[in-house]
Amino acid sequence: MPRRITSFSNETIKRIRSLEQKKFRRIENRFMAEGMRIVAEAAEAGRIAETLVFAEDLAEHALLRRLIAQCEAAGGEAIEVPREILHKITGKDNPQALVGVFPIPETRLEDLDRKSSDLWTVCQSLKDPGNLGTILRTNDAVGAGGLILLDQSCDPWSVEAVRASMGALFTQPIVQTTGPAFFEWLRAGPGMLVGTSLRTDHDYQDVRYDAPTFILMGNEQHGLPQEYEDACDVLVKIPMRGKADSLNVAVSCAVMLYEVLNQRRR
Amino acid sequence: MPRRITSFSNETIKRIRSLEQKKFRRIENRFMAEGMRIVAEAAEAGRIAETLVFAEDLAEHALLRRLIAQCEAAGGEAIEVPREILHKITGKDNPQALVGVFPIPETRLEDLDRKSSDLWTVCQSLKDPGNLGTILRTNDAVGAGGLILLDQSCDPWSVEAVRASMGALFTQPIVQTTGPAFFEWLRAGPGMLVGTSLRTDHDYQDVRYDAPTFILMGNEQHGLPQEYEDACDVLVKIPMRGKADSLNVAVSCAVMLYEVLNQRRR
Repeated sequence: MPRRITSFSNETIKRIRSLEQKKFRRIENRFMAEGMRIVAEAAEAGRIAETLVFAEDLAEHALLRRLIAQCEAAGGEAIEVPREILHKITGKDNPQALVGVFPIPETRLEDLDRKSSDLWTVCQSLKDPGNLGTILRTNDAVGAGGLILLDQSCDPWSVEAVRASMGALFTQPIVQTTGPAFFEWLRAGPGMLVGTSLRTDHDYQDVRYDAPTFILMGNEQHGLPQEYEDACDVLVKIPMRGKADSLNVAVSCAVMLYEVLNQRRR
Repeated sequence: MPRRITSFSNETIKRIRSLEQKKFRRIENRFMAEGMRIVAEAAEAGRIAETLVFAEDLAEHALLRRLIAQCEAAGGEAIEVPREILHKITGKDNPQALVGVFPIPETRLEDLDRKSSDLWTVCQSLKDPGNLGTILRTNDAVGAGGLILLDQSCDPWSVEAVRASMGALFTQPIVQTTGPAFFEWLRAGPGMLVGTSLRTDHDYQDVRYDAPTFILMGNEQHGLPQEYEDACDVLVKIPMRGKADSLNVAVSCAVMLYEVLNQRRR
């Protein structure tokens, strides 16, 4: 039976709202996902929200009722609120009618099974959460094994990253580690490390990608550090004919991932 | 000689700041671009800012001095301000040191030379300015002829779209029109209209794309309306192996554009 909360000063509501900030996500070890579609994708991937906060005017919505039932059956709590409270939790004028709270999964390199997929994405110092979420979504689409974040990347559990991932962060393992730790793990088993770079003439379509392939993308502004490029098995370049000679990092990553996928389906 | 303004209540500063809102962009027929890099890209494309507002602490920066000289030589005005004023203009905590104001170019379908490129992008009811800017950037990279926006799309001259385009909106012609007007223009000359859709089994790599190719992308949430799909010469699908069966629209667009480019460079 959902609990009803109408006061914004309620402690539970305040705690959920605080998850907008990275500091509190770390303290609580929880993050929030907005929207029926993403929470439903999570449930399909077997990830049931610990807490669901939903708009009272939607209490009879069939999918919502199913999500509430799943949440409560798993020992979670569903909370019915007026729209204004959802507005305050999400800080948006037109808030989604549903917010789910989930534990942050801690996945380490040692937890990854590199044989589970022939394709992986590795990003170094990724700064934009929208790019991160978009990369997760593409990863899901190509059947990649997961996303490995090196060094100081943005937080994959931020509201923007969760939103841009469209639920893919519930199906894609995400590891946060450092460059050196990753290289050590990588070289302890099979894997071709492919760096995208502007400092090579090696066309990305001229390379045969061995499985498992690890696609390494650099920071939005600076690309890859020299020593990370040196650690790659091959550096490749996506051809560009324009004036600016640069692509959005999530776009470059997708072009690379689809090239590998296309080679394997031929 | 740059003018110096230190008061936020100055009329020129207020007018520039108002360009953050679409309404005032339409009234003034002007938009703003932030950052040395984007303003320099604009100048390289022959688009000189009418007004430049720069941080006083950067007055001796070599590239900035060149941009100021170009602006003034073209009859424009350079304005030196304290950082706080740039902060107020851009609404950001760490504002760029330079903002340029440019006239909005009005490009109509009749102004496009479809023989100038073998590849064009068409987006229907695109909603996210970040996606729009990213698509412009990819368009530039593949040497596309321009971007045609159908129906109610977001504003290409918004600060977010300009930023995400990384300057590509100074090199890519942009037309805003309606579906029916576009179809009429398209069918009055050569052109293969290719729609991306989930409602087809036609693999995007199995099609030979005739020049000029027009890649038609649908809205982020709803895809293409049925009648727009019916108007296409071919519908194609990008293969997906994941749980979610969807890609970010700027990612799908890039995967399509690179397929066409790759076919032509083979």
